[in-house]
Amino acid sequence: MYELGVVYRNITRTDAAAADALARFGSATVHEAMGRVGLMKPYMRPIYAGAQVSGTAVTVLLQPGDNWMMHVAAEQIRPGDVVVAAVTAECTDGYFGDLLATSFMARGAKALVIDAGVRDVKTLHEMGFPVWSKAISSKGTIKATLGSVNVPVVCAGQLITPGDVIVADDDGVVCVPRALAAKALAAATAREANEAEKRAKLASGILGLDMYKMREPLEKAGLKYID
Amino acid sequence: MYELGVVYRNITRTDAAAADALARFGSATVHEAMGRVGLMKPYMRPIYAGAQVSGTAVTVLLQPGDNWMMHVAAEQIRPGDVVVAAVTAECTDGYFGDLLATSFMARGAKALVIDAGVRDVKTLHEMGFPVWSKAISSKGTIKATLGSVNVPVVCAGQLITPGDVIVADDDGVVCVPRALAAKALAAATAREANEAEKRAKLASGILGLDMYKMREPLEKAGLKYID
Amino acid sequence: MYELGVVYRNITRTDAAAADALARFGSATVHEAMGRVGLMKPYMRPIYAGAQVSGTAVTVLLQPGDNWMMHVAAEQIRPGDVVVAAVTAECTDGYFGDLLATSFMARGAKALVIDAGVRDVKTLHEMGFPVWSKAISSKGTIKATLGSVNVPVVCAGQLITPGDVIVADDDGVVCVPRALAAKALAAATAREANEAEKRAKLASGILGLDMYKMREPLEKAGLKYID
Amino acid sequence: MYELGVVYRNITRTDAAAADALARFGSATVHEAMGRVGLMKPYMRPIYAGAQVSGTAVTVLLQPGDNWMMHVAAEQIRPGDVVVAAVTAECTDGYFGDLLATSFMARGAKALVIDAGVRDVKTLHEMGFPVWSKAISSKGTIKATLGSVNVPVVCAGQLITPGDVIVADDDGVVCVPRALAAKALAAATAREANEAEKRAKLASGILGLDMYKMREPLEKAGLKYID
Amino acid sequence: MYELGVVYRNITRTDAAAADALARFGSATVHEAMGRVGLMKPYMRPIYAGAQVSGTAVTVLLQPGDNWMMHVAAEQIRPGDVVVAAVTAECTDGYFGDLLATSFMARGAKALVIDAGVRDVKTLHEMGFPVWSKAISSKGTIKATLGSVNVPVVCAGQLITPGDVIVADDDGVVCVPRALAAKALAAATAREANEAEKRAKLASGILGLDMYKMREPLEKAGLKYID
Amino acid sequence: MYELGVVYRNITRTDAAAADALARFGSATVHEAMGRVGLMKPYMRPIYAGAQVSGTAVTVLLQPGDNWMMHVAAEQIRPGDVVVAAVTAECTDGYFGDLLATSFMARGAKALVIDAGVRDVKTLHEMGFPVWSKAISSKGTIKATLGSVNVPVVCAGQLITPGDVIVADDDGVVCVPRALAAKALAAATAREANEAEKRAKLASGILGLDMYKMREPLEKAGLKYID
Repeated sequence: MYELGVVYRNITRTDAAAADALARFGSATVHEAMGRVGLMKPYMRPIYAGAQVSGTAVTVLLQPGDNWMMHVAAEQIRPGDVVVAAVTAECTDGYFGDLLATSFMARGAKALVIDAGVRDVKTLHEMGFPVWSKAISSKGTIKATLGSVNVPVVCAGQLITPGDVIVADDDGVVCVPRALAAKALAAATAREANEAEKRAKLASGILGLDMYKMREPLEKAGLKYID
Repeated sequence: MYELGVVYRNITRTDAAAADALARFGSATVHEAMGRVGLMKPYMRPIYAGAQVSGTAVTVLLQPGDNWMMHVAAEQIRPGDVVVAAVTAECTDGYFGDLLATSFMARGAKALVIDAGVRDVKTLHEMGFPVWSKAISSKGTIKATLGSVNVPVVCAGQLITPGDVIVADDDGVVCVPRALAAKALAAATAREANEAEKRAKLASGILGLDMYKMREPLEKAGLKYID
Repeated sequence: MYELGVVYRNITRTDAAAADALARFGSATVHEAMGRVGLMKPYMRPIYAGAQVSGTAVTVLLQPGDNWMMHVAAEQIRPGDVVVAAVTAECTDGYFGDLLATSFMARGAKALVIDAGVRDVKTLHEMGFPVWSKAISSKGTIKATLGSVNVPVVCAGQLITPGDVIVADDDGVVCVPRALAAKALAAATAREANEAEKRAKLASGILGLDMYKMREPLEKAGLKYID
Repeated sequence: MYELGVVYRNITRTDAAAADALARFGSATVHEAMGRVGLMKPYMRPIYAGAQVSGTAVTVLLQPGDNWMMHVAAEQIRPGDVVVAAVTAECTDGYFGDLLATSFMARGAKALVIDAGVRDVKTLHEMGFPVWSKAISSKGTIKATLGSVNVPVVCAGQLITPGDVIVADDDGVVCVPRALAAKALAAATAREANEAEKRAKLASGILGLDMYKMREPLEKAGLKYID
Repeated sequence: MYELGVVYRNITRTDAAAADALARFGSATVHEAMGRVGLMKPYMRPIYAGAQVSGTAVTVLLQPGDNWMMHVAAEQIRPGDVVVAAVTAECTDGYFGDLLATSFMARGAKALVIDAGVRDVKTLHEMGFPVWSKAISSKGTIKATLGSVNVPVVCAGQLITPGDVIVADDDGVVCVPRALAAKALAAATAREANEAEKRAKLASGILGLDMYKMREPLEKAGLKYID
Repeated sequence: MYELGVVYRNITRTDAAAADALARFGSATVHEAMGRVGLMKPYMRPIYAGAQVSGTAVTVLLQPGDNWMMHVAAEQIRPGDVVVAAVTAECTDGYFGDLLATSFMARGAKALVIDAGVRDVKTLHEMGFPVWSKAISSKGTIKATLGSVNVPVVCAGQLITPGDVIVADDDGVVCVPRALAAKALAAATAREANEAEKRAKLASGILGLDMYKMREPLEKAGLKYID
């Protein structure tokens, strides 16, 4: 359940070095590196292709059709943050457009992840401010009811604690809890080191069946080849 | 309820100057300028990014899986029109492709907005004929049952009267009733005049909290800051 | 119902000349040429715009959350094939990424059509390996349970028999059974021959109403024009 | 587009005799009798099985998450009315519960049709007040923003004009425009007269193929029987 | 892909004894007995609770919005059959009501399974004719285009071959291929024999952890208990 | 993010008196009493109508298609508990049937709330074991991968901490955090005391407009009555 009407000003952010470094691995590798947890639901999609970011989560809890708290959240942003916005009910309204994006960028935000809608998407693309959302909608919002900033929120099925790392790209959005960021970074680095070699082998025509030594376990599992 | 089997040839279109001028504000600004009404549901998406149009609505009511009336509608198109197509039941079939687009363009149509599917989307993009639809589908249609042209239709949840202005871009599709077009244009113009100044302030780091004088009302609403 | 744990090594592929030639007509024309059957559901979308392919189907039946059989399928790919993947239950996990794509390309695969999710979509685009899927998701899969390769599968509502032709583009994915490929090719060719002439007429302003001689049947059906 | 902040007190209701008489035919027969138009989308479902009603529409336009206008609508209800509620945006909140139902019943309302959610459904069932809705939800609403009463509204894809007849049962909800009510009643009556005889024939084992003389048209259409 | 315009009169039905006997095990047990394959997607729901049937499949392939082939199918029904209806495109129209049900019952049909909509559901319940469908809708259909009867069809994601056994109850609909019916019956019988004993143990308070000897494998998998 | 492979044996349950007392108010009243927070998404529906329960949450985190942890959870159930099950990915499989229900009832569980599917729903109804789920499906699950018991989980969009109170009825499922249970009970009691009086007034024909003194604020908000 959510705490309403509060703004936590002092959150413990993940160390910036780790938070920033995770971006280059992308959401799929980070998700694997963490043991396949932490991924938001796949309805969260980028508003334009090609962006790949990571940063520390500043969370905002919104009321349906009301983006008042977005302005409150703006003040809590520090350079390197990714704003993560949840709504207390299902909503596809356009909570965020080019003006708020201008403000967020001025504060140093790297991206917005919102379990609702956004608008001005063409301008946001031109500005280079990436957003992952569940909808795009011209529908504006009012400023009438309190939510909260920097409380734990559920966004697209994931619990996000302020200060966690968010990694987002064309494949989706993954959350790395602060306590696991260093470990996830190490695991992702190790994973990636392997991939170049694997890719070269596969490109040369070697099969995964052989490279991963799958033939024996497949046979044991009972796989039958029929000519 | 719909009137079937009729074509209204004489509709009263919104004045072309107002209808054309609304395009540059985009659907979000126009929707705000009208008091946040008139927006189609957000499942209506452009088949390619970047198009931004406005024009006077010629409406067509289709039967499921049957695009016969599209050809009847073509004859009623005048330069500057946007065709708005509704279906009497849920349908995702591809009612419209490059041949019909060629015909619509020859008649002067600016765009199609259809609460169903379209096809040949790659060619439509190359032709520069923008479409907002709820689906893309290769599935063709037959020509067997009558619908109507230029009757009021419900498209993606909005009632569209022939002659209304349609404004569409990457954010969605909004309908401006003929009687309100001049007023909407004035309101959108006023709105936009404000935005450049606001954007500059926000870009300089001024917060919306201060620019919009939100701190006092937020405090009155009970917002608590916790350090 | 599906046969599990088997790999059919010898399938009868559609003749390569016909299988390859169908690509240039695109899914909409081929679908029409076949009498409007064979189309997968429109939720199957390309991961990037502009690809247009055809090829012979190698099918793979996957278990939910498990991509083991993808590696088994890789070995059965021959140049010119399109891999068609079905899952025994609804699943949006990312079964396929850049490593498997490298392997599939090395084997000569032209594309993947999968009734589930894929990941590494940015890299897949850079590699030029087209995929049609129902989802994009970072969520990885395990390798624990047997499915099958080259059994008939239901993919996005269509029954696909190994060796059938798959035609896919921005409009969707259509399946041409092997026995009908030559006929479909002839019909698509005939259809297309007509289109250039029609397009020119429509571009000159001739109406479909006249070109297709629809005025009389519309009148017979009872269409009324009201001034 | 909607007119906000107005209540039309004097609407022209369909003659009560016709409005009441349509109930016994049910939505499917009435929908057929009208030429297959006027049906709301099938996501509109009764909150309990078995209710079958008809009455004159009092319409109410609600804001998302706000049921203030329900109380305004209550005053406009006359005996025999069915309240039809639309929302200016997608919403599944529970706008209506046992207290409002008590008030509506005291005013003589026969039912509620709402393109949103309701709650207290167990109590509503015990009270015998039927509701057709798109959702059931405990989520309450606020009372802060104006909508309208007795303006034309779009409810589940249908345009409803105040005073139209609403016919609802387990199969769905159909709207009969005031001007067509007498005609629809006559057509439904004629339709039903036929059905008893048809039912008896079919029950005796006579096939629809013979009763409706379909064998010849099927053969002409090319149907082949294969032994 | 589907064959259109044909009716296969001679299909090989599963032996009636096996087909009838499977009903009492229900869809969940039969689905388990078959190794967890053959289940239609869970959007297929009974129109009323409590029915539990099995029978041999007579298949019918319908066109969208057109129930002509239902009448053709009626003639092919033999006592003990379950009619399985697929549509060549997504459709929620009400293809089937009390008149067709009267005819189907007179021919000996036990049930209908349809990947579309039905209507007259209250009357169907009173008649005791069970239907599993994806929608309920008053929307009627026309009789204009050929489909087929007794061709293999894809219904709710499952391939159904005429003569297969269909088992349906409140949990869903499962298809047992003819060749596997005897085996499935034996496996279901064996499964059920075990269940009474298990139920008694669990009711006495014995845990599944002990009854199924799960403690050791859970520990091996690394489960940690924390006090 | 979730912790996998752990079972917390000692959770602090909400005081039984409060946990049990909340049932009689139902989810709508409790949700209002808490300030309109804590509600699961409305896709969570009871498998049969009429059940109304409350109890302390024992949580279980499941893997997709795998119900192993349900057996682990059974051992942690104490009389008065409601089991709340989440899955690490979207899944509609039938994780729970009559055998597990027998075991849960033997342990004293009052209900199951599961963000996935269940089966044997007819038997569960006969046994009187209520379940709220997002799907009903015959599809069984395996027992192969660890999840967790009594960790905080996200179920249908709500964060549930073990020991919280769950209130569920025909309107939905609401979660009351342990720390707020006494307050919620007091608020619900106060709310209900008012309702009988209100209901009597409304039943007598007094309008909410007058009872709640809405006429003046409506007029101030600008509501216009038109005769």
